[in-house]
Amino acid sequence: MDIRQESLKKHYEWKGKIEVTSRVSVHSREELSLAYTPGVAEPCMEIHKNIDKSFELTRRSNLVAVVTDGTAVLGLGDIGPEAGMPVMEGKAALFKEFADVDAFPICVRSKDVEEIVRTVYLISGSFGGINLEDISAPRCFEIERRLKELCDIPVFHDDQHGTAIVVAAAVLNALKVVRKEIESVRIVVNGAGSAGIAIARHLLNLGAADLTMVDRCGILCEGMEELNPAQADMARLTNRAHKRGLLADAMQGADLFIGVSAPGIVTEDMVRSMAAEPVVFAMANPTPEIMPDLAKAAGAKVVGTGRSDFPNQINNVLAFPGIFRGALDCRAKEINEPMKAAASHAIAGLVSDSELSEEYILPSAFDRRVGEAVANAIVQAARDAGVAQI
Amino acid sequence: MDIRQESLKKHYEWKGKIEVTSRVSVHSREELSLAYTPGVAEPCMEIHKNIDKSFELTRRSNLVAVVTDGTAVLGLGDIGPEAGMPVMEGKAALFKEFADVDAFPICVRSKDVEEIVRTVYLISGSFGGINLEDISAPRCFEIERRLKELCDIPVFHDDQHGTAIVVAAAVLNALKVVRKEIESVRIVVNGAGSAGIAIARHLLNLGAADLTMVDRCGILCEGMEELNPAQADMARLTNRAHKRGLLADAMQGADLFIGVSAPGIVTEDMVRSMAAEPVVFAMANPTPEIMPDLAKAAGAKVVGTGRSDFPNQINNVLAFPGIFRGALDCRAKEINEPMKAAASHAIAGLVSDSELSEEYILPSAFDRRVGEAVANAIVQAARDAGVAQI
Repeated sequence: MDIRQESLKKHYEWKGKIEVTSRVSVHSREELSLAYTPGVAEPCMEIHKNIDKSFELTRRSNLVAVVTDGTAVLGLGDIGPEAGMPVMEGKAALFKEFADVDAFPICVRSKDVEEIVRTVYLISGSFGGINLEDISAPRCFEIERRLKELCDIPVFHDDQHGTAIVVAAAVLNALKVVRKEIESVRIVVNGAGSAGIAIARHLLNLGAADLTMVDRCGILCEGMEELNPAQADMARLTNRAHKRGLLADAMQGADLFIGVSAPGIVTEDMVRSMAAEPVVFAMANPTPEIMPDLAKAAGAKVVGTGRSDFPNQINNVLAFPGIFRGALDCRAKEINEPMKAAASHAIAGLVSDSELSEEYILPSAFDRRVGEAVANAIVQAARDAGVAQI
Repeated sequence: MDIRQESLKKHYEWKGKIEVTSRVSVHSREELSLAYTPGVAEPCMEIHKNIDKSFELTRRSNLVAVVTDGTAVLGLGDIGPEAGMPVMEGKAALFKEFADVDAFPICVRSKDVEEIVRTVYLISGSFGGINLEDISAPRCFEIERRLKELCDIPVFHDDQHGTAIVVAAAVLNALKVVRKEIESVRIVVNGAGSAGIAIARHLLNLGAADLTMVDRCGILCEGMEELNPAQADMARLTNRAHKRGLLADAMQGADLFIGVSAPGIVTEDMVRSMAAEPVVFAMANPTPEIMPDLAKAAGAKVVGTGRSDFPNQINNVLAFPGIFRGALDCRAKEINEPMKAAASHAIAGLVSDSELSEEYILPSAFDRRVGEAVANAIVQAARDAGVAQI
């Protein structure tokens, strides 16, 4: 049985991958009167007097909403809000297992940006953080931006920032392997959707100076008419040489290729045209832009994919649990650029110089140190940036 | 330390009364690929093809949203959505403990009926049922009515229907004690808010014929101008003698008094003016309309309150866990009048004729038979009414 059929069978057996349990005993009249009426009136009034107390007196302090509208679920596209829920439940299970964060999946039955923003804002008093998930670009940018303005809790679109944080960690260590500096390498990001744009922005924040983005329309170049507003912003921030052309043109002489695009669109010739000891991150799922053995044969020194069956899996699970753990622990108002940078460095730092190799640039998803290291880095960076509230 | 201060202390220790846990193991690459990508794509696509599969492949089948806007929390009034959350979490803990229902508390940061309806509808794909809670009257009637129309899952305002179901169970058994019939007794319901109106409607459905409602404005009578629309409806359905007057006038000659109103407003003289062997349910919380000892001294044969420190506690926890357990088990489209009636009879039926007495008309909140008996009655009634989907 293949993995998808096996998974379906398991899902029928599981009857849901999450559960809401009680943390209190309610087996006697006294217990009932403490956890519920009449005793509960007192914590209610404490919060009424000072809304911040909701973080101490309810589960809000440890609760993250995992929110989707089902418009960009995995590589499956717009399959609808309810159909996205198995992914959201899986994510919630990972949050709990990897960082003891309580995450609750919410699907929103609307594709209207305004309505999604309003709905999530209106229920945000139940949570300590909002993890947006599998929302299509460019709508996801506007939804995240608006929610960040409205909400008093961190809002984080994992497909953008979680991916960017882990890719950047991989970049930092891969560049160590090939002894190159982020400030001087030529970087190509193929795929100018939510992940590609977030990766590019994050690498620029980390010091990248020569970065070119490519999408179906070719190299993103300032002034191109076919770009959406988010892509047009990126065209202004990248490709300062105003190069035009296709993916093959962009890759000539590049040191680092990052693909968040489509299966098989990178050829061996394209890899051969790159600079010496090139790094290739081919993260299209489940089939990469180029298979690792082909990339290696064409001269790639370090190859990473999204897959667990090849070395150097670039997996979001390295980031999101620890990021929210840290943000909740210090009640961060937001998850900002310095915090994301700190998270990338924390993940990269878990691979020691002696362990680092072309086949080992990232810690395993099951390395129990990761969540804590990321959380600590997030807390420190939040404090340094003055956005930690406790 | 009094119960409220003790409860506050406990709430600081508990750090939330609910928790979202994982039902799956994600400790190996294989487990991760079954619960999450890439395997999870298959259950997603199954739901995409048939949205009903969301009840089999996600936790939706066992999940109830406990929704408030914080406008009528306990007897505390409009204290705000976040301040209502300790009650909602307590309710969620009771759902889990008493009927293994996963309930998740959601507070909505709006008092606008339209906005609350839209918000709850838009997130309803994440749940198998909606329990509305502590929403002020008369807004709660419109919110519930609109949500019932919109949603494909049961919507139930517990302050109305949960209360009505348990009160009716108490009525059925109290009338047995005094050997009177519901069809012929004179009933007074004091308090024409959400609970009072729901109690009156439910008793009429169960056969009550002579019922009078009283509110601050006096006896509800058809044609009175100071009534809201819900009260005006009740004025047309009750008090067919078109009596006018105050509470004392209504209580003269009544067989059954049901108070969901204010502390201490029933005097001993009013009880003395009732019919022979009167039944008095004084449910204002925490201080009843008349204290049980006074009511007894004035001749009341059966006395019930909302309090656990007197006999005959009339407690919602007897109803809501089993009601949703049953509704989820048979995937009921709605919770309708015959189902509510069945629940009342099921609760009343747990007190055998040999146990029944003026001091024992309802099973204990901790009687483990209750949830199952109510659930079974709900399933049977849903099937009989053709609203069960499995």
